[in-house]
Amino acid sequence: MLRDVSIIGIGSTPFTVQKDRSFKELAIDACNQAILDAGIDRKMIQSFYLGNYLSGLLINQETIAPLVAYELGLNIGTPATKTEGACTSGGIALRQAYLLIAAGIYDFALVAGAEKMSTASREKVTMSLAAAMDPETEGATGLTFPGFFAIIARRHMHDYGTTIEQLAQVSVKNHLNSLPNPRARFRHPTSLEEVLNSRPIADPLKLFDCCPITDGAAAAILCPADRALEFTSKPIDIAGSGHAIGPVGIFRHQNITELWSTVMAGKQAYEQAKLKPEDIDIAEIHDCFTIAEIADSEELGFFPKGKGGFAVEEGLTQVDGKIPINPSGGLLAKGHPVGATGAGQVYEVVKQLRDEHENQVKDPEFGLVHNSGGSDSVCTVHILKRRS
Amino acid sequence: MLRDVSIIGIGSTPFTVQKDRSFKELAIDACNQAILDAGIDRKMIQSFYLGNYLSGLLINQETIAPLVAYELGLNIGTPATKTEGACTSGGIALRQAYLLIAAGIYDFALVAGAEKMSTASREKVTMSLAAAMDPETEGATGLTFPGFFAIIARRHMHDYGTTIEQLAQVSVKNHLNSLPNPRARFRHPTSLEEVLNSRPIADPLKLFDCCPITDGAAAAILCPADRALEFTSKPIDIAGSGHAIGPVGIFRHQNITELWSTVMAGKQAYEQAKLKPEDIDIAEIHDCFTIAEIADSEELGFFPKGKGGFAVEEGLTQVDGKIPINPSGGLLAKGHPVGATGAGQVYEVVKQLRDEHENQVKDPEFGLVHNSGGSDSVCTVHILKRRS
Repeated sequence: MLRDVSIIGIGSTPFTVQKDRSFKELAIDACNQAILDAGIDRKMIQSFYLGNYLSGLLINQETIAPLVAYELGLNIGTPATKTEGACTSGGIALRQAYLLIAAGIYDFALVAGAEKMSTASREKVTMSLAAAMDPETEGATGLTFPGFFAIIARRHMHDYGTTIEQLAQVSVKNHLNSLPNPRARFRHPTSLEEVLNSRPIADPLKLFDCCPITDGAAAAILCPADRALEFTSKPIDIAGSGHAIGPVGIFRHQNITELWSTVMAGKQAYEQAKLKPEDIDIAEIHDCFTIAEIADSEELGFFPKGKGGFAVEEGLTQVDGKIPINPSGGLLAKGHPVGATGAGQVYEVVKQLRDEHENQVKDPEFGLVHNSGGSDSVCTVHILKRRS
Repeated sequence: MLRDVSIIGIGSTPFTVQKDRSFKELAIDACNQAILDAGIDRKMIQSFYLGNYLSGLLINQETIAPLVAYELGLNIGTPATKTEGACTSGGIALRQAYLLIAAGIYDFALVAGAEKMSTASREKVTMSLAAAMDPETEGATGLTFPGFFAIIARRHMHDYGTTIEQLAQVSVKNHLNSLPNPRARFRHPTSLEEVLNSRPIADPLKLFDCCPITDGAAAAILCPADRALEFTSKPIDIAGSGHAIGPVGIFRHQNITELWSTVMAGKQAYEQAKLKPEDIDIAEIHDCFTIAEIADSEELGFFPKGKGGFAVEEGLTQVDGKIPINPSGGLLAKGHPVGATGAGQVYEVVKQLRDEHENQVKDPEFGLVHNSGGSDSVCTVHILKRRS
């Protein structure tokens, strides 16, 4: 029998280019904020999970979980673990801590995600991101992630009549959403015309269809739900958790617009929470590219297959729409420090459910966090809820 | 209340230089052997943890847990996670699966460790291993791991009278142990003279005081103890598990011969198993350097502080000694494919407790696995037992 688990503290650095701050500084800043937010004595923390993807590849630094744990002042003897699953690294960190608290192994855990990308060249970043593919198959073809999602976009357009303008509207919406978000990398509006006329990256995707290189870290403190009120008047409970692999690699898909890791992780989370997509009031979806938000909004059940682009066009995913998607600005406009993103999404949804967000959705009860990695390789979905 | 957990299947590639086999091939080979050894339907596996340290740094490949899981034929929807903690990556993978089965979250989990090192240059390997230090402090001094352990060795010699010959005797013993081990990289004996006359690496450590660059993978299948006999007549139970950070970085130690991550992880494992060091019949200890085996044999309580070198000299750690240490050959002679080592140690101890090892210790009941990483950064200790 699983115990209910709550998030009692959150922290985040800005998701921007932070050339003057090291990886360690970013991670420690976010963790200290979460500890302060929870008002917990850090010596009570029994386990630490740190999601990260690129620290080895981009800054020649690994074994960061013990390093950050020690410098934070956690006890000697605390277990500390880095989890890696490409862009899902942060969501996986959350999942591990959640399961172990739910199972009664620990009472207090710190979860974080962190990434430092801006010190590396763009070429190095692109090649390092491509390390989330299989170098023996996909990698050997020269495919990179913009190419992978461009292929999905073309097929989605072919099968369902999704338009380039609908893709662009995702970017316009998310840039509008990030305007009031102090953690966002981009805080200026963009227009349909500007997105459509931006530099081609991988046809049909333009520059503004793609998320930016970003530095940042986010963190959360978890504890059993029945102890949460000792620390906060607004605990946010974890109602469901899913973690799934898909058919890793584009060539293994019967239909490349079907993203099975998202479908399966979503199914697990919905079933555990005993909820349906229509119960969700706000979602942070892994919009690494505009087409990803559209396809994943379908795979998570918010819209029928093929209707995600039309839903954007109709405004259904805006902050005041049927299902507000990425009111934070998402990866496209808030930024995508890869290993930090899953933890950052949790930060944004917790703020929403506390009714404290800078771009607040009206009175949300249930929030969904979707964190996806690789070429449909792995995904986590978490459903959070406020107490009524 | 934790459930008892058993290891019902094991697999391992040789720990050698395997230039013609990719990382993925090594990992899949070890996992398939473990699945075959357990006689389990792979579709029953509910979770997969893969320990790895260097795949990003050395072969520009990450997100390997979903990749290996999918190619192994595990179900779409299975959670798959890479754990990283330097040389402790494999031990951490085991720990995650153990906890989640003990807690009742899963019934069947696959654990593996894998590393592919030989394709990179020695310089690249040395710099990548140094990524397990803190680049902002230790790293900036130019310290590498041979240097770190050389400093420990000098201090141990100064404080306790440990001799260079005692260090060398660890290497002689472990090379003798690896002779009959078909998984070992080095299968030739060495002499005290040969070790002492080998090339200086970081004074007082010579080449034969240091473990070699190695490729390899190992794996294990875990399930609840009360289901183990469905799969094997010789289940090996996990009696205790510890996972701890230490004071990361050499300059933070009051006394550099005290390795706190080992002390704390050992304490956790002994307490859970309700055992003392004198109850252990065989130990695989993380002998990345000869001094590490000596210092860690003290920190694990097999000998009083400062007596580890003398114990080796007296033959107490030989296969027929008071506490046989590294009958597999250890990292020094069996090899050290970094992320695979923790899983490889489990393989060796399970074979011992099944009474099936090529260098069999007489009738062992309890075996200890010690997997340590970074500059006293993180450590796991697991105590395994055969059923009487």
